[in-house]
Amino acid sequence: AAVSQGHISVVLLGATGDLAKKYLWQGLFQLYMDQVSSGHSFTFHGAALTALEPGQRLMFDVLKKLACPPDEAPNRCAVLKDQFLKLSQYHQLKTAENYTVLNREIETLLRQEGLKEAGRIFYFSVPPFAYTEIARHINSSCRPPPGAWLRVVLEKPFGHDLESAQQLAAELTSFFREEEMYRVDHYLGKQAVAHILPFRDQNRQFLDPIWNRHHVERVEIVLKETVDAKGRTSFYEQYGVIRDVLQNHLTEALMFLTMELPANVSRAEEVLQCKLQAFQSLRGLEKNSAVLGQYQAYASQVREELQKAQDYISTTPTFAGVLIHSDNLRWEGVPFLLTSGKALDERVGYVRVLFKNRAYCTQSETLRDAGHSQCKAKQIIFYIGHGALNTPAVLVSRNLFRPVMPEGSWKEAVGQSDLHVFGQPLSDYYVYSPVKERDAYSVLISNIYHGRKDFFITTENLLASWGFWTPLLDSISHQPLRLYPGGVENQHLLDFEMVSGEVAFTLAEPVELLMYRTIESKFRQSPLVSAWSEDLISQLASDIEKTASQTVARSGQFHLALSGGSSPVVLFQRLARHHYAFPWKHTHIWLVDERCVPLTDAESNFFSLHNHLLQSVRVPYFNVHPMPVHLNQRLCVEEDRGPELYAKEIMALVANASFDLVLLGVGTDGHTASLFPHSEDGLEGAQTVVLTESPVKPHQRMSLSLPLINKARQVFVLVLGKGKHDITTLLSRVGHAPRKWPISGVSPSSGQLVWYVDYEALLG
Amino acid sequence: AAVSQGHISVVLLGATGDLAKKYLWQGLFQLYMDQVSSGHSFTFHGAALTALEPGQRLMFDVLKKLACPPDEAPNRCAVLKDQFLKLSQYHQLKTAENYTVLNREIETLLRQEGLKEAGRIFYFSVPPFAYTEIARHINSSCRPPPGAWLRVVLEKPFGHDLESAQQLAAELTSFFREEEMYRVDHYLGKQAVAHILPFRDQNRQFLDPIWNRHHVERVEIVLKETVDAKGRTSFYEQYGVIRDVLQNHLTEALMFLTMELPANVSRAEEVLQCKLQAFQSLRGLEKNSAVLGQYQAYASQVREELQKAQDYISTTPTFAGVLIHSDNLRWEGVPFLLTSGKALDERVGYVRVLFKNRAYCTQSETLRDAGHSQCKAKQIIFYIGHGALNTPAVLVSRNLFRPVMPEGSWKEAVGQSDLHVFGQPLSDYYVYSPVKERDAYSVLISNIYHGRKDFFITTENLLASWGFWTPLLDSISHQPLRLYPGGVENQHLLDFEMVSGEVAFTLAEPVELLMYRTIESKFRQSPLVSAWSEDLISQLASDIEKTASQTVARSGQFHLALSGGSSPVVLFQRLARHHYAFPWKHTHIWLVDERCVPLTDAESNFFSLHNHLLQSVRVPYFNVHPMPVHLNQRLCVEEDRGPELYAKEIMALVANASFDLVLLGVGTDGHTASLFPHSEDGLEGAQTVVLTESPVKPHQRMSLSLPLINKARQVFVLVLGKGKHDITTLLSRVGHAPRKWPISGVSPSSGQLVWYVDYEALLG
Repeated sequence: AAVSQGHISVVLLGATGDLAKKYLWQGLFQLYMDQVSSGHSFTFHGAALTALEPGQRLMFDVLKKLACPPDEAPNRCAVLKDQFLKLSQYHQLKTAENYTVLNREIETLLRQEGLKEAGRIFYFSVPPFAYTEIARHINSSCRPPPGAWLRVVLEKPFGHDLESAQQLAAELTSFFREEEMYRVDHYLGKQAVAHILPFRDQNRQFLDPIWNRHHVERVEIVLKETVDAKGRTSFYEQYGVIRDVLQNHLTEALMFLTMELPANVSRAEEVLQCKLQAFQSLRGLEKNSAVLGQYQAYASQVREELQKAQDYISTTPTFAGVLIHSDNLRWEGVPFLLTSGKALDERVGYVRVLFKNRAYCTQSETLRDAGHSQCKAKQIIFYIGHGALNTPAVLVSRNLFRPVMPEGSWKEAVGQSDLHVFGQPLSDYYVYSPVKERDAYSVLISNIYHGRKDFFITTENLLASWGFWTPLLDSISHQPLRLYPGGVENQHLLDFEMVSGEVAFTLAEPVELLMYRTIESKFRQSPLVSAWSEDLISQLASDIEKTASQTVARSGQFHLALSGGSSPVVLFQRLARHHYAFPWKHTHIWLVDERCVPLTDAESNFFSLHNHLLQSVRVPYFNVHPMPVHLNQRLCVEEDRGPELYAKEIMALVANASFDLVLLGVGTDGHTASLFPHSEDGLEGAQTVVLTESPVKPHQRMSLSLPLINKARQVFVLVLGKGKHDITTLLSRVGHAPRKWPISGVSPSSGQLVWYVDYEALLG
Repeated sequence: AAVSQGHISVVLLGATGDLAKKYLWQGLFQLYMDQVSSGHSFTFHGAALTALEPGQRLMFDVLKKLACPPDEAPNRCAVLKDQFLKLSQYHQLKTAENYTVLNREIETLLRQEGLKEAGRIFYFSVPPFAYTEIARHINSSCRPPPGAWLRVVLEKPFGHDLESAQQLAAELTSFFREEEMYRVDHYLGKQAVAHILPFRDQNRQFLDPIWNRHHVERVEIVLKETVDAKGRTSFYEQYGVIRDVLQNHLTEALMFLTMELPANVSRAEEVLQCKLQAFQSLRGLEKNSAVLGQYQAYASQVREELQKAQDYISTTPTFAGVLIHSDNLRWEGVPFLLTSGKALDERVGYVRVLFKNRAYCTQSETLRDAGHSQCKAKQIIFYIGHGALNTPAVLVSRNLFRPVMPEGSWKEAVGQSDLHVFGQPLSDYYVYSPVKERDAYSVLISNIYHGRKDFFITTENLLASWGFWTPLLDSISHQPLRLYPGGVENQHLLDFEMVSGEVAFTLAEPVELLMYRTIESKFRQSPLVSAWSEDLISQLASDIEKTASQTVARSGQFHLALSGGSSPVVLFQRLARHHYAFPWKHTHIWLVDERCVPLTDAESNFFSLHNHLLQSVRVPYFNVHPMPVHLNQRLCVEEDRGPELYAKEIMALVANASFDLVLLGVGTDGHTASLFPHSEDGLEGAQTVVLTESPVKPHQRMSLSLPLINKARQVFVLVLGKGKHDITTLLSRVGHAPRKWPISGVSPSSGQLVWYVDYEALLG
């Protein structure tokens, strides 16, 4: 026998539960078969709340049914199974005392056998509400002695949103060190998913030039199920498809695709670091980043199983298609489509990377198809399982490259060439499948044994993922769902399309509800546009674009003066992301007001404008006009004559000093621009740009004056949020009183004023 | 009979030539048949150099063979043909006298018959060298009286490059007014090409949202021929495929696709205006915008037909694939591929607009193909003729929209559904073909009669096209050509691919010549990189990118100081167009020197830098550091302390004031940056930014000092062109003498200096 590497105790909590029965014991048996000659000795401890005698019986019923894998010699397997059963015993783990006893038994065994302890694995196959209690007991009673390791294995769900995940993580962190925790996402044990990184590593020579936005057209990460949630609605109704599948399984696959490759992919620490960075590049999701559906029978299943009233309506999605963008240099602009759903037409999972077709084939089609034409689609598919292939596989288009695959574990697949997958005959691909098909849990248990933390979800990784998904989950909680009949009858009902960074179902709803999303009316004698804030912002952005296009068509340029503050940020982002036809090249950007801080200060209005808008669009350098608040290394000093400089710049470039469009906001005190109540600064007179004093920090400001604002051809005032309800109500009643409420003095002498007020500000 | 609209005399010059025999007489006969009841009366005058009697015989041999179109009643046609022959007569047109006689005959006829004159058409079916002489005679002797129009119809070639086209245009313009000239590009008479604009007009409701870069994936404009140039090499050897097909036919089709649609497409003037604007948006072509080939037999055909020596090598391309971009808002980034060639595998012409696939189809493929899935390719094809369809046609993918087509002239085609075109069965398309197939010349002659100038090439249009193509023609004149066997044997030899704005053949040359494109050596004890200028620039751009990436990886930012002048412009363009992975977001841009002019002045170094580089990349606003030459509305006044301001900015942002990379040039007088010979300004001392005096205008300059430059971590010096040969030679011999030659003082104290000198500067 090999030199003793020490003893490993594996404790399976929830030893008689479904997961344990179906996968975990089999995975532990596989581990034993694989590692019996490694030099480690093992004991396996099943544990549950059940009393000793019935628990023992239940557990050994499971163990007796353990299967021998087809690639194992039957004799050897029978012998090993016998040993495995002898090494396994059942424990009732309920009270603190039970844990102390377990610990003592392990210690006793080790002493009796004269074994050095290598480590202990505690596998939590229990509901998450039990985690804290068990963790506390393990930490206080079952830690191995110094020199031996502790590994606790946790099963999802790891929270319900960012907050609950943080809370759970904080509790666990009080009992275990980060390196002791192994959070399972069983997708990471699926052979095709587990091979994404090794594939990228082993095929660097081919992938390095093409694994980027210049070559990748789109990526699809898909898990389709035919089953529905029947019998599981008590769980499902709280989670839905995004929490159940997208936030974890599909997001993890996405990370393996988008992360930068560390020099050495076998270093778990480096892999995890790169993966975390990939999370940081994800662009935030918005309501319209997703399409959502629910199969028709779901509502009645919920009502029945959860005893809900007949009028109960579930808002839980059972289908989701989500468009994700990564904003780093490598992936900017590439659409990543994550899709999953229940009650669909087939059961299949895959990760598909489709490359751009950059070739022109001079030869006619009929001649072309004979060879490996560059004009055929080029793709790489990590086929997770089921579907037409019914096996895990890696597919690479033959006109792309012949991949390097590890010989021992993947083999080239033959036959089945009449199959058609992803738009092409199977013969168009190099197809590889695993030499041994291995269950995900077996793969993961082996990786726990080997301490490969990169196959598990770290706390940082988990919280990054929830941080990414939670805003979408919040924003869609009252989103209408498309109802679908289920199975093949869904037809094209769930097909969806990308349109300028958003997604929408391709087919209109069979019966479309007509809803007035925006209302148009009057406010202070001027036109009023009102809607829920998201719709209001998109209307405002469209109106600005329309004004810009018309103005450029008329005069060749568009002078736009923008306010600071928080309300316009969403507007800036919308303009940056959705208005590709905006004539930025001919637009001049001016500031309505500025805080006397350096332009690169986070408090600077210009800094915010730059971050949220300017860095994403192509406004010529000369057309950008920050306010000169920082001259001669000092801020808004009168002698530096900043306001005069800005006024001169306006006079020189803007015809009649009449801006084409001024965007204003309103403060709760009725201020607008940086014109504050109870001060005459900037309310009248010839000075067009003024220094003012704000009641709040930073006090010093620079602002366009009211007379200058009133010379504009158009003024749009944006008012958002409940916090503005009182001032909005007040303004609807008062007349022209700029000394009290500067905003009331906004009244373009020959231009047009339009109010954009959201429902919250308008209606409270 | 209708009210008389007046008489039209048609004079066909070259009446017995090939084109006249094959198309023009038939077109004139068609015109007569179509317009016999229009109220106009006609006479047709064939003319040539041949004497009267033999000419007459030749011409009437042609006329007798005129065919009756299948859609014309045979009786009516026979009668009309008889009339047409009677109305036609032959003239010898050789001397000035001949023209006077012709004019007198027309006048006499009109007087005798008591006819008012409507106009005269002179159709030049003669070689272009004869144009001027004929034009002079028509202008002096054959103009119709006031109130009647003159239309002269000209056949290509209209020059050989921009210069010759300008010359020819200038000559013609001295005889004819612009509205009198009808330059023929017979492609504009092809029914599918002629229908592009009407199609766009009649389908605005469908096309408006998708006819842009957000929806169009690529456009292919293709004319493939199976014939070769045998028997025509005396013409072809001077022209080649680009002048023969791309500059005219394919470019015109491109314009019809990319131009903005005027409100009224039947207004020729508006159409021509929009078309001209479309030319102005085309991005300039570079050497690598094209792939070129020559069929193998061509060289021997040329040697035989033109009696060239056995070692004669022809550089005339018989195949070209060209990638074109339009830089306007609508088309930015969309690749337009123009392809044509002789001796290819099939004869076909088409314009294909392929749309992006933005859909995700949730249904599995097998179920999906049944319906009109959004996941199938979406395309619109204007099928010019031949190929698999063998008829002009318009094809629109059924999942796109059912097009509006003019009922009288286009009909929906049926049958042939087993055909497969452009990757899909014909049944996937709506297919329309002309009710009557009409020859291009018939269409054009009808349009001459109707005065539809938008079917012809105006002088401005012609020169815009030559202006676009001539730089490419110049740059490829010594480009190696890929030899291809011809026909189906070409296989994939002529397939090509787009890579970052350029094109290249997909397959490597069967036998690749190994050539050293760049040499590396030493110059003034520092590394020297030398090559032909284009290769040198691309090497330099790559080296800068590499430095940038490494520096950002190390320190998070990259401080790059750039020189003005003309040499860096090509470098800037290269960086802007080809280096997508450059870490611009982390790059700071500084100026090495600046002229004391406003930043928006065309002479400003910054202005040039902005135009050629900054406006195309995403450098954050805060990272752009123009020199402060324009303070307080005045230029480089000492009291404004511009140099001190810039020095402070450098000190504040650049660690140790040590730039990561400084790019310099060299003047013929040995100056570098704005440090000039025989002046001590900026050569030594503590001042890091200085005001200097240039011997040439504008005299006042601001410049980094030599000590500051020498603190840089890397300095690259770029020297281009024959004009720099003398100073290069001199510099290779002299030592450190910055007072005489400031460039000789460049010697980084701890950084690296690299010289980039092109062969012309190095070798003269």
